[in-house]
Amino acid sequence: MIHGMEQLYERVAQRGPVCVGLDTLSDYVPPRERRRALDDAEAVLSFNRAIIDGTIDVCACFKVQIAYYEALGLGGLRVYAQTLRYIRERGALVIADVKRGDIADTAAQYARAHFSGDLEADFVTLSPYMGMDTLTPWLPYVEDQGKGVFVLLRTSNAGMRDFEYRELKSGGRLYHEVGNRLSELALQFMGASGFSALGAVVGCTEKDEAAELRRQWPHLFFLIPGYGAQGGAAEDAALLLRAGNGGVVNASRSILKAWTQGIRELSSGFEGRLPGEITYQDAAQAARAGVIEMAQAIRTAGANQNQGKE
Amino acid sequence: MIHGMEQLYERVAQRGPVCVGLDTLSDYVPPRERRRALDDAEAVLSFNRAIIDGTIDVCACFKVQIAYYEALGLGGLRVYAQTLRYIRERGALVIADVKRGDIADTAAQYARAHFSGDLEADFVTLSPYMGMDTLTPWLPYVEDQGKGVFVLLRTSNAGMRDFEYRELKSGGRLYHEVGNRLSELALQFMGASGFSALGAVVGCTEKDEAAELRRQWPHLFFLIPGYGAQGGAAEDAALLLRAGNGGVVNASRSILKAWTQGIRELSSGFEGRLPGEITYQDAAQAARAGVIEMAQAIRTAGANQNQGKE
Repeated sequence: MIHGMEQLYERVAQRGPVCVGLDTLSDYVPPRERRRALDDAEAVLSFNRAIIDGTIDVCACFKVQIAYYEALGLGGLRVYAQTLRYIRERGALVIADVKRGDIADTAAQYARAHFSGDLEADFVTLSPYMGMDTLTPWLPYVEDQGKGVFVLLRTSNAGMRDFEYRELKSGGRLYHEVGNRLSELALQFMGASGFSALGAVVGCTEKDEAAELRRQWPHLFFLIPGYGAQGGAAEDAALLLRAGNGGVVNASRSILKAWTQGIRELSSGFEGRLPGEITYQDAAQAARAGVIEMAQAIRTAGANQNQGKE
Repeated sequence: MIHGMEQLYERVAQRGPVCVGLDTLSDYVPPRERRRALDDAEAVLSFNRAIIDGTIDVCACFKVQIAYYEALGLGGLRVYAQTLRYIRERGALVIADVKRGDIADTAAQYARAHFSGDLEADFVTLSPYMGMDTLTPWLPYVEDQGKGVFVLLRTSNAGMRDFEYRELKSGGRLYHEVGNRLSELALQFMGASGFSALGAVVGCTEKDEAAELRRQWPHLFFLIPGYGAQGGAAEDAALLLRAGNGGVVNASRSILKAWTQGIRELSSGFEGRLPGEITYQDAAQAARAGVIEMAQAIRTAGANQNQGKE
């Protein structure tokens, strides 16, 4: 079986590494469309579908952050399920950004929840704090159904220094230990591309550390958040890739809100129209232009870095 | 305002430290009742209500593990919401065991999700891996609405040794660092009882370590899982309390399945009846007997330990 991470590798090879993050707030919906919707949940679903339609053939995958849907209650969770289903029915890959981390029977229930049924995704994000046994119940789905996971490793928030970055008595930092343990387990789930079905969440970081991260765990596929709204840049992201592959780079707000920003100049379709006249279609077009521009920026940065090495 | 952790302290003082964990599988529902239910989700909800009714005046609080409900999809999440609402409407306190750990806007959405609206709980469990900034967005709810949190500190699963237990170069173990940072922040949210609205998840452990944990962070209220089905015992739990308070001890399976076990001897109501004849009412009665017995066992263990000290 070709596992999901192999498919993701293929998508990146074809379309570049952009992961479209559907961390959708109802505020991101163009006002005209939001007014016409039955309620905020319906507006978010229609907006998501438009963004998916507009970017599906230029992005590597989608990531849906469940927190934004939980915050709308049961109606929001229905939209979460519908968004996942829409992405998968259209043949695209989706990462459920749920950062679950629990053990034994509880973890088994989480795995069932996110790898089957209403909330089924292709990949999930997991948190390693409680130990490697938090991963165990997810592995049968990796083995038998081609699912994949991304384990939190080294993030790029300020608080990263509190625990992830702490030096251990035995040498290295906590996140090195997480990476080494994960890397060892990952060898059991290798694909033909040279990457495992077990990957890691790695934030954009300083130049030297990024290069070291990539070198240290060559077979871990990276989910790289923090592009755009969170301040990362193409250069940082490119350093975490290997010849432009081996990871996906997530951008959420900068893509979803492309219609409100300077990026609109790129998608000349709605130049000069008032914000109140913008449609889902316009938002989708702006998002598409944003994805293409981002993929290009990462590709250029990667090419420059390679040139620098020669 | 009397914050939730103060209320919890009061409940423990009145009724003992048992936290009833509603990690409900449809398999736990007596067969006769399960057959009569419309579907598994309805059976779980009716079962939860019976257990709540049967134990509400003898337990300190309830804990609902969201994984078990997510695993049933959207219908399960509706039951999760209905269970939380039922507990709160009946005037009891409920911990949402969600182990969320994310940052910035995402964490703010999670806080909104679990401290307001359909999924509102009195307390949540949180995971600290990404750093102390994962806690920040929850604090306004602690400050303004009397909510409380329990941060994963030192759990009792085997994998605990992988990361939580690692020794840091600067001294102590990782979980000590988490505890110290949490403890410092917790001082900003102190109640009259001497406990903060910020508490910690601490598993039953060896004798010396338990005593040290309790001594080290005297103002952190503990959520203590791992009693019963997970192998902990009254002696271990009592060591993590302070004169029988300062923590709640969670039991799930042993209470929910009390009707199937030896405990039925205590609640003589259905002695001699066949399993196929057991009702919700019987399950509730057995659960009640289980809670009373567990509270008594912890009280006795605590008294013996105190005597040992004299």
